[in-house]
Amino acid sequence: MKILVAGLGALGTVYSCLLSGAGHEVYGLAKENSCEIINNNGVKVLGLWGEHHAFLKKTVSDPSLLNGIDWDMVIVTVKSYQNADVLPKLKDLIQEHTYLCLLQNGYGNYELASQYVSKKNIIMGRVIFGAETLATAVSKVTVCADDVMLGSPENLIPMDNLEKIAALFARASIPTKATDRIMEFVRAKIINNSALNPLGALFEVPYGELAANVYTKNIMDGIIEEIFTLLKKMGQKTLWPDKESYYEVFYDQLIPVTAAHRASMLQDIKRGRQTEIEALNGAIAGLAKQYGTHAPINEFLTKIIKAKESLRLDKI
Amino acid sequence: MKILVAGLGALGTVYSCLLSGAGHEVYGLAKENSCEIINNNGVKVLGLWGEHHAFLKKTVSDPSLLNGIDWDMVIVTVKSYQNADVLPKLKDLIQEHTYLCLLQNGYGNYELASQYVSKKNIIMGRVIFGAETLATAVSKVTVCADDVMLGSPENLIPMDNLEKIAALFARASIPTKATDRIMEFVRAKIINNSALNPLGALFEVPYGELAANVYTKNIMDGIIEEIFTLLKKMGQKTLWPDKESYYEVFYDQLIPVTAAHRASMLQDIKRGRQTEIEALNGAIAGLAKQYGTHAPINEFLTKIIKAKESLRLDKI
Repeated sequence: MKILVAGLGALGTVYSCLLSGAGHEVYGLAKENSCEIINNNGVKVLGLWGEHHAFLKKTVSDPSLLNGIDWDMVIVTVKSYQNADVLPKLKDLIQEHTYLCLLQNGYGNYELASQYVSKKNIIMGRVIFGAETLATAVSKVTVCADDVMLGSPENLIPMDNLEKIAALFARASIPTKATDRIMEFVRAKIINNSALNPLGALFEVPYGELAANVYTKNIMDGIIEEIFTLLKKMGQKTLWPDKESYYEVFYDQLIPVTAAHRASMLQDIKRGRQTEIEALNGAIAGLAKQYGTHAPINEFLTKIIKAKESLRLDKI
Repeated sequence: MKILVAGLGALGTVYSCLLSGAGHEVYGLAKENSCEIINNNGVKVLGLWGEHHAFLKKTVSDPSLLNGIDWDMVIVTVKSYQNADVLPKLKDLIQEHTYLCLLQNGYGNYELASQYVSKKNIIMGRVIFGAETLATAVSKVTVCADDVMLGSPENLIPMDNLEKIAALFARASIPTKATDRIMEFVRAKIINNSALNPLGALFEVPYGELAANVYTKNIMDGIIEEIFTLLKKMGQKTLWPDKESYYEVFYDQLIPVTAAHRASMLQDIKRGRQTEIEALNGAIAGLAKQYGTHAPINEFLTKIIKAKESLRLDKI
């Protein structure tokens, strides 16, 4: 298959490297100053799924340099806040038989992509393994909480096709399953990220401490409650019937297995990068206004994280 | 004059030492484990107002050990959150001619004290010099933004008497004035502290950076706006007609002179001490509920600071 991976950060490096290793023709889209390094050195993956090294067919910073290639799949792994910039540039690469596969965090990615590409071509993924960047296009897979889930939000793609694609990823060492409830999985991750990521970044403590402390637990309860209220108002289902069932899973199962984990948002801030707060708590706060519910905790936490992000950038 | 200073932290050390030096009979009330040190070594003040050392008449941890003394003044310098515990123990020391002088931060101290002591005996002070503790009963005066202001909130004490007390403090090297608008000065300090202290503690940056950054400035604007809305609803005056006039003074005068200053609340947290957040933003949030206005920023910031305070204590 001919595959373009748009974004060669921690996640894109894993996908491009392992899919190359599985015999696919993989191209990369990266920042201009990374292209030469990647074209010279290739992409490398370490950690949980073993050591892999591959050379991509070509890595470019401008998608128009890849015109004339008949793509089977375009995998988008840029940060969600870059979608508004990147998706319009990718839309001409998507033919009738090309899948656009979005593997990002946060709210609104599907909605935005469907402004450029037919919903029949969009596959949403819920990625819940962790990868960190060691150097340009060198990633370490640190943890895998569950299989990647793939699906078509409105089930416009036959399950057979989705299962074939999931099998393709799985053969490349990335455990993956197809589902007909993908947005419930995506939302589950949004809830999890919105509760843990900003507080982990703000207080600079691992997830386990956030759940053990009565004050941070209380704030997380509030974040989750606001999201459940909003989703109910929007008529969007989650994997759980109500917030109480989610609290149980969150505190009894999800937190214990990631107790030592630190928020990726903290890494973003420390490296002077923009965080994904606007696609998480910020999106929740925005939708709450739009749907007439209240999300003051999500709203204020967004302001606080933007402040921390910005104070850090002031020093760089 | 016979004076008891209740609380020999940074501020109480300054008052007890300088009043002793000016020839008054000064007693101390301190934590049990500090009494012996203070009785052996005395109290010491360094910094802005010169070097002073004095031995107090006696320092005890239990006010009942001081029964039978005919007090002219009891100066309260414990943290405001200790008032509920300390004021009931002091009330029997206050005779008809004894002044109870409260020199603390935050909301509600006058209201609480007047449950135990006649309002005719209560003097409120607005202290806006800074002192830090170098060791037990050793304080350094680091900065003096303005004279201490003293007054009777409902003007139940003749101005003549207040001016005599102000003069007494001034002779002891503590610049002090009497005013018939004391609560406007106290409120001014509450607004200033509520805007700067929690954000300074949260982000660990000096005041100047909070004003220079667009996100933290926006949050401070919100904190101040909520307080002005509340005070208007409560019918409580400030030194300024509206929030716009305060913004001007705050950003153009108050912040520039304290730009390098760091929040005392941050020092409290780092030393594993409780902060005064509940007498500042927490009190604002509580009063807003009581008076039917909204103070979500003050409310949430209180939760965030309690969380930071508590996460720090978890590690000690």
